[in-house]
Amino acid sequence: MNTVSPLAPERFPDLPEIGGVRVATVEAGIRYKGRDDLLLVELAPGTAIAGALTRSLTASAPVDWCREALTGGRARAIVVNSGNANAFTGRAGKTAVEHTVAATAAALGCAEREVFVSSTGVIGEPLPAESTIVQKLPGLARALASGSWDRAAGAIMTTDTFPKGASATAKIGGRTVRIAGIAKGSGMIAPDMATMLAYVFTDAAVPPDLLQRLTSRAVERSFNAITVDSDTSTSDTVLVAATGAAGNPEPDAAMLRGFARALEAVCRDLAHQIIRDGEGASKFVEIAVTGAASARAAKRIGLAIANSPLVKTAIAGEDANWGRIVMAVGKAGEKADRDALRIGIGGVEITRGGQVVPDYDETPVARHMQGQDIRIAVDIGVGRGKATVWTCDLTHGYIDINGSYRS
Amino acid sequence: MNTVSPLAPERFPDLPEIGGVRVATVEAGIRYKGRDDLLLVELAPGTAIAGALTRSLTASAPVDWCREALTGGRARAIVVNSGNANAFTGRAGKTAVEHTVAATAAALGCAEREVFVSSTGVIGEPLPAESTIVQKLPGLARALASGSWDRAAGAIMTTDTFPKGASATAKIGGRTVRIAGIAKGSGMIAPDMATMLAYVFTDAAVPPDLLQRLTSRAVERSFNAITVDSDTSTSDTVLVAATGAAGNPEPDAAMLRGFARALEAVCRDLAHQIIRDGEGASKFVEIAVTGAASARAAKRIGLAIANSPLVKTAIAGEDANWGRIVMAVGKAGEKADRDALRIGIGGVEITRGGQVVPDYDETPVARHMQGQDIRIAVDIGVGRGKATVWTCDLTHGYIDINGSYRS
Repeated sequence: MNTVSPLAPERFPDLPEIGGVRVATVEAGIRYKGRDDLLLVELAPGTAIAGALTRSLTASAPVDWCREALTGGRARAIVVNSGNANAFTGRAGKTAVEHTVAATAAALGCAEREVFVSSTGVIGEPLPAESTIVQKLPGLARALASGSWDRAAGAIMTTDTFPKGASATAKIGGRTVRIAGIAKGSGMIAPDMATMLAYVFTDAAVPPDLLQRLTSRAVERSFNAITVDSDTSTSDTVLVAATGAAGNPEPDAAMLRGFARALEAVCRDLAHQIIRDGEGASKFVEIAVTGAASARAAKRIGLAIANSPLVKTAIAGEDANWGRIVMAVGKAGEKADRDALRIGIGGVEITRGGQVVPDYDETPVARHMQGQDIRIAVDIGVGRGKATVWTCDLTHGYIDINGSYRS
Repeated sequence: MNTVSPLAPERFPDLPEIGGVRVATVEAGIRYKGRDDLLLVELAPGTAIAGALTRSLTASAPVDWCREALTGGRARAIVVNSGNANAFTGRAGKTAVEHTVAATAAALGCAEREVFVSSTGVIGEPLPAESTIVQKLPGLARALASGSWDRAAGAIMTTDTFPKGASATAKIGGRTVRIAGIAKGSGMIAPDMATMLAYVFTDAAVPPDLLQRLTSRAVERSFNAITVDSDTSTSDTVLVAATGAAGNPEPDAAMLRGFARALEAVCRDLAHQIIRDGEGASKFVEIAVTGAASARAAKRIGLAIANSPLVKTAIAGEDANWGRIVMAVGKAGEKADRDALRIGIGGVEITRGGQVVPDYDETPVARHMQGQDIRIAVDIGVGRGKATVWTCDLTHGYIDINGSYRS
C-alpha cells in the first residue's frame, strides 16, 4: 500500500530558494512515528497571500480560519500538520486552531491574522494542538532555514507515495522572479486522510488583489481540473504567497501575463503529480473537451467522463471502450448533439456523425491503451467551449486502499 | 462473473396473470447463444401506457421512438431485445427501430405508434433487426400466452445474475386489480450492456394522464432513487401498461390512492432487486436522509453519499467510516450545517452537534457493518425535507466485471 506509484517522477525536482521564505519541519508525533509531520513556513513582512479553499459545506476548522484570514491579504506564517485533519471536531477543533495560531504569532512576533493553518489526516478525532504543535513551535522557529523543499513536501504527506514539488521563473518589468511550490494529495480523501494541499511561493512583488485573481484562474485550470474519485475533501487548501524579495516594480495586470503563465504551469505540474499519485492509479488520463456550449459546459462534460467509474475501470482494463464515453457525455447534463459527437483516443478518431467511423481499426488505439499516459479527445459539436481535465484509472488498488479498515 | 449475486432472492416470485397481457420469448441469436433474447408483449386493445425514459442526451434510437409514442397514451405491443442496445448507431439505428415497429404492427394488426421498443446490450454496434427480430416476430405472435413471467424476465437480461419480478394487488372502486412487473439491470451500464429496463402491467382501468402521473411519482421514489455507480444508461426505460381487464369503474385521483401505493411498492421491489444484482455488490445499502432544506435537497445529498466511491469502498470493507459520510454531505452542494449534522448507522447514533457523540462505542456498529443489509441515517438539521435512496457497495467484483475487455 505504500509502494511508490508507478506513475511517480524519477526524483524530487530541484527547487530554487525563494527570497523571504524560510521553512522548518519536525516530528511532532501527532499520528505518524519516525517521520516529520509538522511544517512551519515563515514569510517576510509584507508578503501578499491569496488562496483557494474547499467548497465543502462541512469544511474543517483550519479552512474556516484561512477563509477569514485571507480577507487580510497578508501572511507571515503557514503551519501545516499531517495525521489529523481537525475536521468535524466541533468547538474543540476551533480551539485547536486558536492555540496553534496564538503560539505561531508569539514565536514569530506577528499578528494572528497573518498566520495560516492547515491540517490533513483522520476526520473526527480531536487534534491535541497544545500537547504537540504548540510545544514544537518555538524550536521550529529557531530551526527556520531557506530551501529544503523536499523535507517540507514530505512533512505534509499522508497516503502520498512520493513528495510533490514544482518550480518556474518569469519576468516582471524586466526583473526575473522565481516560483516554487509543494503539494500533497492522493485520493480526494484517502483512508480518511488525503485532502489536497498546495503551497506556492514566489519572490515576486504582486498586490494581494491581483495575486488572488491570478491564483483563482490558475487553480480553476489545474487543481480544480483534476479528479481521482469525484470526492471532495473537507480540508482542500491552496495558498500562494508573494514575498516581493525580487524587487520587481509594482506590476499591473498587463505586466503579469508571463507570471500568470508561470504560476499556472507550477499549479498544473503539482496537480498532475497529485493525479500521478492517485490511489491505485496505473494510468494518467488527459481528457480534452472541445466544441461545447461554453468553457464551463466543456469542463462539466470532461469531469463527467473523468468521474465515470465505468470509463475509469475500462481504462484500467486497457479497453478502448468509447461507448462508455458516449454514456458519460450523455449524463453530464450539458448541451450535446449525439449525431455530432466526435471521440478520439490516442489521436485516432473513433466516432463521427453519431456513429463509429467506417472501417474503424482498433489496433493503434488498443496499443495506446496499453501505455501509461492516455489521451482522450471529445468534440461535442455544439459550440466553441473547451476545457481539459485530468484523472487516473480506477483499479483494484483503489479498492484495496479504501476498502481496508481505518486502523 | 456469472455466479448469482449473494444478495439475490431465494427464487423468482409467483406473479399473477394479468388480463389483457400475453407474452412470448424466443432465441433470436442477436448476441447470446443458447438463451432467449427477444421478448414480445401483446396488450389488449385500449390499453393505457405511461413511462419514464433516460434523461441521457445521447439516448438510444428505441428511447427516441418511445418518447414520441408515449404521447399517444395507448399501447398494443412491447418488443424488447437483449445483446445489442441499438445506441449510438446513427441513421441505421433509427431504421432498425422502424423495421421492428412495422413488423410488430403487421403481426398484431395494430398501429405503429402503439408499438414500444427497447434494446439493451452493446453500444455502437448496428442492430441487425431485419435478419433477426423481424424474422422472429410472426412466430412470436403465434406463441403468445398468458403468464410465464419468469421467461419474459430472463429474455431481457444482460449481465444480470437473476431474473427480476414483483407483484401487488389493490382495490379501485371496490374492484380488485392486479399489478405484475419485470425488470433488468445490474450496473447502470454493465460491460456496455446493462441499462435499467422495467415493464409493469396491470389489469386496472386507468386513464393515460392519471397513469402517467402515478408512474412519474412511483419512478421518482424507486428507480430514480437507486444507483450502482452513478452512471446513466443511454437506454433506461420504464413502461407501465394498464389493460382495464379488471373492469373497475373509471377512477379519479382519489380512488387511485391504494393503486398508487401498490404501483410504487412494485416499482420499489424491482428497483431493490436491481441493486441486489449490482455489479460486484456484497451489501445492500439504504440511506435515509431527513432534515434537509427540501425533498429534492435530501435526495441529492442521499445520492452524493450513495455515489461516493469512498463511502462505497468503506462499506465493502465493513468499515463504519462516518467521516466519509460527512465528506459526502459536504460535497453535495445542498444546504447543510456541519454543527447540526447527525449520522447514524444500523440504528446507532454516531455524531451529534458537529462531532462524534461522547463515549461512542463502535462495537454494535461494526457488527451491523458485517451484515448484508446496511442502514445509514443522516439528519441534516436545516429543514424538513426527506428522501431515501438505495445503493450497493463498491468491490473488487465491480472492477473485475468492468475492467475486463469487452469481447
